[in-house]
Amino acid sequence: MRPDMLANPRSERVNRVAALSGRSARLKHNQLLVEGPQAVRELLMHRAPTVRDVYLTDAARQRYPDVAELAAERVRFVHLVSPQVARAMSPDCQGVLAVSQLAAIAGRQADIADVVAGARLVVVLPAASDPGNVGTIIRAADACGADAVLVAVGSVDVTSPKVVRATAGSLFHLPVLTGLELPNIAAALRQAGLQILGADGYGSLVLEDSGELLAAPTAWVLGNEAHGLGQAEKAICDDTVRITLHGAAESLNVAAAAAIVLHATAHAQHAARA
Amino acid sequence: MRPDMLANPRSERVNRVAALSGRSARLKHNQLLVEGPQAVRELLMHRAPTVRDVYLTDAARQRYPDVAELAAERVRFVHLVSPQVARAMSPDCQGVLAVSQLAAIAGRQADIADVVAGARLVVVLPAASDPGNVGTIIRAADACGADAVLVAVGSVDVTSPKVVRATAGSLFHLPVLTGLELPNIAAALRQAGLQILGADGYGSLVLEDSGELLAAPTAWVLGNEAHGLGQAEKAICDDTVRITLHGAAESLNVAAAAAIVLHATAHAQHAARA
Repeated sequence: MRPDMLANPRSERVNRVAALSGRSARLKHNQLLVEGPQAVRELLMHRAPTVRDVYLTDAARQRYPDVAELAAERVRFVHLVSPQVARAMSPDCQGVLAVSQLAAIAGRQADIADVVAGARLVVVLPAASDPGNVGTIIRAADACGADAVLVAVGSVDVTSPKVVRATAGSLFHLPVLTGLELPNIAAALRQAGLQILGADGYGSLVLEDSGELLAAPTAWVLGNEAHGLGQAEKAICDDTVRITLHGAAESLNVAAAAAIVLHATAHAQHAARA
Repeated sequence: MRPDMLANPRSERVNRVAALSGRSARLKHNQLLVEGPQAVRELLMHRAPTVRDVYLTDAARQRYPDVAELAAERVRFVHLVSPQVARAMSPDCQGVLAVSQLAAIAGRQADIADVVAGARLVVVLPAASDPGNVGTIIRAADACGADAVLVAVGSVDVTSPKVVRATAGSLFHLPVLTGLELPNIAAALRQAGLQILGADGYGSLVLEDSGELLAAPTAWVLGNEAHGLGQAEKAICDDTVRITLHGAAESLNVAAAAAIVLHATAHAQHAARA
């Protein structure tokens, strides 16, 4: 056993880190648990000043030398841990985890007007309930060059480990604002000159015919997984848009629908500028 | 307590149904567990002859009268169960579940050449490992009017409850063939005149410029979540195609990528025929 290695999986520190998988501990300590080499790499690349501790097993240090090097350069407290300690802190971390301030995610602190000023593509989640879907949507928003993701009070907590994991690091690439009220979102988007479109299976416009419309700065409102867009959500939309379906499925998974509408919008906007 | 209600959550029947969440019990009994009103509705609509038993709570019977009616019309054994029994059979079933033969999914029985004859859009999963992703891809394939999903031996078991749930009933809408060898998949697709395209972040073609190509009958190969397309998988492809990304994300979730390429292909094919 190396003397500098944290090796007791029942220590107070291990319990404290593991507890961050729960919302109450995250809020109490104002901390976020980030698991796995990819997410920790993106955290260190994009949000290093918010990182408090990085934990690495010896095997992970050798397997992901870039992560170990980034951690050594940018973070004060980098700890070597035994595989047992890593597993006790987080069963899914592949030997790499970090604890950062919640401020690693723009969250409640950022000003919505500042974030949407000049934006061309924004995602609004008023009531998304599945962590995997929310993470996948944030990742798709990032991949499509979105300027921000705005999460209303009715949605799942984006600091939950399942969301963080599903974003594959995208959570640290673009502003993800949380705890917002829908009318405030709508007002800020209008003020910034974005049109607001709702993705809806019964939408009045057809996505595939809307290339010209999509070339304008656009915010997409994506509804709840089971219930779609509610009345209040439709009410803030300038229009609702449907994706043409061809098979027997009644609808797409919301993250799949998000990927399609965001990709179409990014394509229309970049084609218009070219 | 009504005399015709199954009310003992520790009965042998309850244990037998609950055990179907495990792969070995499904194979041993040649049975599939289908949970929740949406999946059971689609099972009854599209695969009624394979259904053995339907279990409904009184509340579910009132909340989903169409499901109760379909079950009464099409299935011999429809059982009223207490909420405790429903929960013991499956914690997530919302009071509705069914046990069918594994043949509800085309599976290993169907002949691949028959299934792909005349097909215009096919999805190939050589090594998908996340049940949620696989289910979401099958749902997207259905929504885009795909003719079949071909699942190779290296992929996750599509009869797992997580896959079944994520398909939202699409598993019963189109042939989903399993246990296939990649070379046999490739040979059958070529024989049927489909081009084989691999979705790949470093693909040689650009999706957004490939409308004409996509109008031809196409099979899409979608790689593993973490590793993308392997050498053997690329080797069966006529070409690899990348989705243009604009932000800092290195890649899309595979189900999001699937939604984008399948939607683009369905659009190109329908536009070409119009």
